[in-house]
Amino acid sequence: MTVISIPADSLFGIDNLPYGVFSTADEGRRVGVRVGDSVVDLAKALGDPEAAVFAQPTLNPFMAQGRDRWVAARAQITELVSGEIDEESVFAVDDVTMHLPITVADYVDFYASENHATNLGKLLRPGSAPLMPNWKHLPVGYHGRSSTVVVSGTDIVRPCGQRKAPTAAAPTFGPSVRLDIEAEMGFIVGVGSSMGSSITTDQFAEHCFGAVVLNDWSARDIQAWEYVPLGPNLGKSFATSISPWVVPLQALEAARIDTPVQDPTPLPYLRGEEKWGLDIDLEVEWNGDVVSRPPYGQMYWSPAQMLAHITVNGAAVSTGDLLGSGTVSGARKDQWGAFIELTWNGAEPVVVDGEPRMFIEDGDEISISATAPGSGGGRIGFGEVRARVLPAAGGTQPPGHARA
Amino acid sequence: MTVISIPADSLFGIDNLPYGVFSTADEGRRVGVRVGDSVVDLAKALGDPEAAVFAQPTLNPFMAQGRDRWVAARAQITELVSGEIDEESVFAVDDVTMHLPITVADYVDFYASENHATNLGKLLRPGSAPLMPNWKHLPVGYHGRSSTVVVSGTDIVRPCGQRKAPTAAAPTFGPSVRLDIEAEMGFIVGVGSSMGSSITTDQFAEHCFGAVVLNDWSARDIQAWEYVPLGPNLGKSFATSISPWVVPLQALEAARIDTPVQDPTPLPYLRGEEKWGLDIDLEVEWNGDVVSRPPYGQMYWSPAQMLAHITVNGAAVSTGDLLGSGTVSGARKDQWGAFIELTWNGAEPVVVDGEPRMFIEDGDEISISATAPGSGGGRIGFGEVRARVLPAAGGTQPPGHARA
Repeated sequence: MTVISIPADSLFGIDNLPYGVFSTADEGRRVGVRVGDSVVDLAKALGDPEAAVFAQPTLNPFMAQGRDRWVAARAQITELVSGEIDEESVFAVDDVTMHLPITVADYVDFYASENHATNLGKLLRPGSAPLMPNWKHLPVGYHGRSSTVVVSGTDIVRPCGQRKAPTAAAPTFGPSVRLDIEAEMGFIVGVGSSMGSSITTDQFAEHCFGAVVLNDWSARDIQAWEYVPLGPNLGKSFATSISPWVVPLQALEAARIDTPVQDPTPLPYLRGEEKWGLDIDLEVEWNGDVVSRPPYGQMYWSPAQMLAHITVNGAAVSTGDLLGSGTVSGARKDQWGAFIELTWNGAEPVVVDGEPRMFIEDGDEISISATAPGSGGGRIGFGEVRARVLPAAGGTQPPGHARA
Repeated sequence: MTVISIPADSLFGIDNLPYGVFSTADEGRRVGVRVGDSVVDLAKALGDPEAAVFAQPTLNPFMAQGRDRWVAARAQITELVSGEIDEESVFAVDDVTMHLPITVADYVDFYASENHATNLGKLLRPGSAPLMPNWKHLPVGYHGRSSTVVVSGTDIVRPCGQRKAPTAAAPTFGPSVRLDIEAEMGFIVGVGSSMGSSITTDQFAEHCFGAVVLNDWSARDIQAWEYVPLGPNLGKSFATSISPWVVPLQALEAARIDTPVQDPTPLPYLRGEEKWGLDIDLEVEWNGDVVSRPPYGQMYWSPAQMLAHITVNGAAVSTGDLLGSGTVSGARKDQWGAFIELTWNGAEPVVVDGEPRMFIEDGDEISISATAPGSGGGRIGFGEVRARVLPAAGGTQPPGHARA
C-alpha cells in the first residue's frame, strides 16, 4: 500500500480530482483521476462492481449515470486518495499517455465573449456596429465537426483550402497563411435531453459533467472566404484540441460568480437563479512565451445559458456533447484570446521569442492552460491543451508570408 | 421455401435493393433489404458468419467494411432474392417497423442548388446580387445537429425560439410561425478518412455508401434572427428527417449524369473524371397534394464535390457521416423544394386541399419521395420521408397567423 503525496503548490489537490482517460505501456485505455502528480486507475483502485464503468476507454458511460452518481463517486474517490491505496493502481503522470477523454457527440461552438465579438466586428466589418443586432439577445453559436476533436499533444497539420484576397479576381488554393487559435473553455454534457424537451439554466448542474480547456484552431483566410451566409466550415473543421483532464463541475463551486450585467435583460428562458459565470483564468503560451491571460469571468453568456439556448427549440443533447465557449477575451489587449485580435488582424506584431510574429508558423507550439479558485482556499488546474503545428500535407508554407 | 414476387410496377425491383433497419413484433432491430413489397432479414436469410454484420441495429458496421464488401454483398443478395428463399426471413413491408438506418456521425448540410440559392438571395437580400461571391467557387455548407436526425414517420414538434420582426424593438419568444421544409437528398459516408488526408472527387464511390431522401425542417423566423454571422443553428437543429431505405450507390449507375456546366471552372480539387450528377426526381406532397417536383439533376454541385470539399482541409469524415444536398429546386416554380420559395416568402399562397396556404400548420403532413432510372430500364424508388407536425410543447399556434 502507498499514500499519494501531493506537492504543496499542486493545482491537482483533492479539491480538484479531474477525470481523464489514460493508458500505460502495459495496459490500454481506462479512466483515471489525477491527484498531485499521480494518476489513479479507478476501476482497479475501487474494485467494486460499480467501478467497472471506469474500465472503459471513454468517460461517456460514467457521465451517462447522472449527477447523483457523480457526487457519490467523487465522495468515494476523495476517501480513496486520502488514505492508503494499492500502489498497483497509482501511476506517475509522466508514465502514462493521455487520450481523448470523451466520445464527442455533437459539438457546438459559441461566441460568448463581448470583447471578442466586438474586436472581430471592428476588424471584419469596419464602419458598421461591431456587434450584430442579435448578439445581446442570444448566445450565438454554430455546430462544429465532432470527428476532429483531438486531445492535447496531437500535432495539427496546417490545413489547405480556398481563400481570396478582396482585390483578387478569383480564389486560390493552398495552405492557410493566417492560421490562428481561439482560447476557449469547453463544457461537456453528461446527461442529455430527449427531443422535444428543453433544459433550463437552473438545471445546468444536472446535465453538465465538467469542463476542459479548448483550442478552436481557425484558418482565418479560409474562414473569411467561405463563411457567408452559412457560417464557418473548413476554416474550423480541420481540428479542435481539448485538454485531457475533465474538471468536474463540483470542483468549480468556489469559482462560480455572476456574469457581467446583461443589458438588455434576456428573455425568460435565458434567466435563472443560479450563478454560472466562472472565475477561470486562462493563459496562452506561444512557443513558451506567455502572450495573453484571458479571463473567463468576463464572458457575457454563461455555459448554463448556452445549454438552455440550444435545447429551447426541443433539440436533443447527448452524453458527450461538447459546448465551446468561443474565444475568451478580456477588456485589455493582454487578455485577448486569438492572434487575430492580439495582432489586430496582422497589423501589430506580437513579440515571441524576441521576434515579431503575426499568425502561426510551421513548427510553432501553442499551449493554453487554465486555473480557478478551489474549495480548499488555493487554486485548482485544468492542465493544458498543447499542440505543435506541422507543415501542410504536400505543401510548404508560402515563403515570406507568415513572418512579419 | 418461398419466392418473392415483385409487382410489375414496383420501384423496388432487383436493380434497387435498398438497405434499411427494421423490427417486427417478435424481434428487435436488424438490417433488411427491400424487394417489391417484402423485407428480407439478411442475417437470417444469408446465414453465413459474414452475415452477422446484418444482425445489428444500424447499417454502420456493414458500411464500414468498404466497397469490395458492398459489391460482393449486393451480388450475393441479388442471387438470394432471385431464387427460393426461407419464408421465415421474409416479411411484408406493412408488417415491419422501420428505424433510423444509420448511427449519424457528423452531419453537414449544403446549399448546392443554384436555383434555391438564387431564390433565397432574392427573398432575403433584395437589391443585392442574389448569389454570394463564393457560391460558384465552392459548395457552401455548414454542420448540422446529428442527434436530431430521425426516421420518416417520426412526428415533428413545432419548435419554439426567438424571432424579431424587422420593425420590432426587441425579439419575442414562442412557437415558430414560419415553419418550412427543405426537400433534399442525403448522402451517407460508408468508409471515412483519417485526419490530415482528403478524398478526391473520383474516390467518391469508395467512400459513399448510398443515398436517402431528406427533409431539412427549417423555422424561417428563428433562422432569420439568429443566423448572422455564424450561420443557422436553432432554426434547423430541432429535426432533420430521412427516409428509411438507403439506396446503394451501385443502384444509381443508370442515374449518373453530368452536373450543369460549372462556370467559372472550379479549382482542381473540385474537378474529376467521373460524373456524379444524379438524375433523381423528387416529389413533395403537402397533406396529400403534390405541390412540387424538384429535379436533383439540376443541382450545381455534385455530392462527390461536396465530399471532396469538406475533406480538402484534412478534416476526417466517419462511417455514418451524412451530407445533405441542400434544398433541391429546379428552374421552374413548380420545381422549388421549400415553401418559402413556393409561396415567395409568404406572399403567394399555394393551394393545398382547396385552401390557400403559406407555411406549415399544426397537423399538416409532409411527404417527400424520389425515384431514379434503374439499370433494368425502369425506375427505382427511394421511398419517402413523411412526417406530421405537432403543436409546440406547451404552446399553441399563434391565432390567424399560419393560415393565409
